[in-house]
Amino acid sequence: MGDALERKRLDDAPGREGLNGALRRAKDLKLMIFDVDGVMTDGTLYYSERGEELKAFNIQDGLGIKMLRQSGVEVALITGRKSRAVELRAANLGIAHLYQGVEDKREAHAALLAQLRLATEQSGCMGDDLPDLPLVSRCGFAATVPAAPEALKIRAHYVTRASGGHGAVREVCELILRAQGALERAIGAHLQ
Amino acid sequence: MGDALERKRLDDAPGREGLNGALRRAKDLKLMIFDVDGVMTDGTLYYSERGEELKAFNIQDGLGIKMLRQSGVEVALITGRKSRAVELRAANLGIAHLYQGVEDKREAHAALLAQLRLATEQSGCMGDDLPDLPLVSRCGFAATVPAAPEALKIRAHYVTRASGGHGAVREVCELILRAQGALERAIGAHLQ
Amino acid sequence: MGDALERKRLDDAPGREGLNGALRRAKDLKLMIFDVDGVMTDGTLYYSERGEELKAFNIQDGLGIKMLRQSGVEVALITGRKSRAVELRAANLGIAHLYQGVEDKREAHAALLAQLRLATEQSGCMGDDLPDLPLVSRCGFAATVPAAPEALKIRAHYVTRASGGHGAVREVCELILRAQGALERAIGAHLQ
Amino acid sequence: MGDALERKRLDDAPGREGLNGALRRAKDLKLMIFDVDGVMTDGTLYYSERGEELKAFNIQDGLGIKMLRQSGVEVALITGRKSRAVELRAANLGIAHLYQGVEDKREAHAALLAQLRLATEQSGCMGDDLPDLPLVSRCGFAATVPAAPEALKIRAHYVTRASGGHGAVREVCELILRAQGALERAIGAHLQ
Repeated sequence: MGDALERKRLDDAPGREGLNGALRRAKDLKLMIFDVDGVMTDGTLYYSERGEELKAFNIQDGLGIKMLRQSGVEVALITGRKSRAVELRAANLGIAHLYQGVEDKREAHAALLAQLRLATEQSGCMGDDLPDLPLVSRCGFAATVPAAPEALKIRAHYVTRASGGHGAVREVCELILRAQGALERAIGAHLQ
Repeated sequence: MGDALERKRLDDAPGREGLNGALRRAKDLKLMIFDVDGVMTDGTLYYSERGEELKAFNIQDGLGIKMLRQSGVEVALITGRKSRAVELRAANLGIAHLYQGVEDKREAHAALLAQLRLATEQSGCMGDDLPDLPLVSRCGFAATVPAAPEALKIRAHYVTRASGGHGAVREVCELILRAQGALERAIGAHLQ
Repeated sequence: MGDALERKRLDDAPGREGLNGALRRAKDLKLMIFDVDGVMTDGTLYYSERGEELKAFNIQDGLGIKMLRQSGVEVALITGRKSRAVELRAANLGIAHLYQGVEDKREAHAALLAQLRLATEQSGCMGDDLPDLPLVSRCGFAATVPAAPEALKIRAHYVTRASGGHGAVREVCELILRAQGALERAIGAHLQ
Repeated sequence: MGDALERKRLDDAPGREGLNGALRRAKDLKLMIFDVDGVMTDGTLYYSERGEELKAFNIQDGLGIKMLRQSGVEVALITGRKSRAVELRAANLGIAHLYQGVEDKREAHAALLAQLRLATEQSGCMGDDLPDLPLVSRCGFAATVPAAPEALKIRAHYVTRASGGHGAVREVCELILRAQGALERAIGAHLQ
């Protein structure tokens, strides 16, 4: 039921192979990798006189990531920048795999796959800009946001309707949960 | 007159039983419970290197809560997170009933009803995500925001037109005041 | 020329007596009073663990206020809240008349008129919520924002197209400058 | 390919001489000057009790500026305000030419041209308000944002579709890169 209604939310979203292709690709994911700025946030970097100061995360994204982890999908953050705020947000969400200050995301990706003993096809990623292209081209499932350059959008399997920092991560978490038949159970846990 | 015009503002909002159903349910409310993140705010969590740092509240929501309290409706905040910012905002608005760090909102709800000697039907709630489902299913009147999951929207009696942190709470306060015939008086107090 | 084009920007804005009525009323203004939250800002109150922390002003509004002052119109801020941030922003814009923590705006208004030896009709105001109603009902010219309650909108002479904190104040400053035949000169000063 | 798709993004943007005119003017640029507030940010000035506190920059703009610099175009910031946050953001992006607290932008422009031994036609600028008019009227290529006054828009060669702080700078960087035949190479660097 919840699931039937969520479907409407997903159906008219664009994507290279359509929603069904995205769901098929997300079905067997064991690892989902999120970029931070522009994905977990709306891309805003708040600078004070002390340098970068704040990052603006989204609470509904947080619940999405928790539900994904509870359903057995590993979650990782790989980002080119480096800030203590991201460390604290990751800890708050129970994300153990955090890679900051990464120049070449392919290396972090390979290390992660080796550590978790997963094949590339079992990993998914979500990014918002050109440095995410290598992962988008490699992963079994790739998502991006409406504000991403066309070069990313045409290569991703799913483009969210929500924008970064405003529910885009939650939308992708729900898509994966639904692909794995776990969305209704996740919602039902709150209905007792 | 003010009331006649406010009506336009409310009439085209969606809701399970329509606006009339929502007004009927809000008519005898003695207690209104608001979630914080996504309801009193737009769901943004501002993190600095010291952890969660800021919450962004809305000034028009504040006046709505004050008017509701002045008309005799008790106001409570029940939230899963915990921050000093919420404590200070509650104090600023004269909200005495503040429950933070709540895992199961049903317990806080029951304690509140016992303390105020109210029946469940006399309590209303407003939430934005799955942890609010238990209260939404129980309360005499339940409201939610446009960004809420469908599982909440189909169970709520009223879905605001304004989004969280941008007037959604004010919209619900005005709906309750109008249901109780107190909106025109509240506006009139400023017209002398 | 600039003026001819600015006209388009103003013409389709709503207002009780139409744009021409608003311009006629703004023609002889000697004092313009702005509310702060919801007018100079988008109504967001940023709270940290130390209480209210930040206010988000708009740089284009700032230039509008400077141009208004340079053309000989006095500018005042009257607000119900109190913060050092407003004091500093007022100083930055050269606004000498600052009234904070005001419960009844009529008193501050009367004091200001006496001090500047102006008649009520020579004063204008801009507000976003019910506490601004007394001034909106009194002043020779009254403006408000799209997010204001209907009770304000029907009494104001001009409702901005831009929202509070996103250019609403600038829009009103340009309207007054144009009504007084000073807009083209203000723009021309930057074209030498 | 990437380039072919980016074209769609640019084609329906307004501009005095159309997109082709803007591309022709951007073709031989050796220096691009950006204003800060309203261009690199959305024009919001965050004030705390200590004065101006935060500026909100955009991460995608940052990559655009880096790509522009890597392709051999010098980048400068000229702004009327002054803050350490801008200094730090400029350092983060490798922008060596930073002029803050500038009253008359023509002087900074002339000094910059002399230092880099460039002709006026080889310099471009992007601004959002009247103090940018002198540069907009002088530079070989001038861009502005949708929120700029009409006086700027009619004089600029390109008006971005994205708003300030939300990708407007990135859009202009991509336009210049494309005009110089460098966009596809910049994207390709991320595809290996």
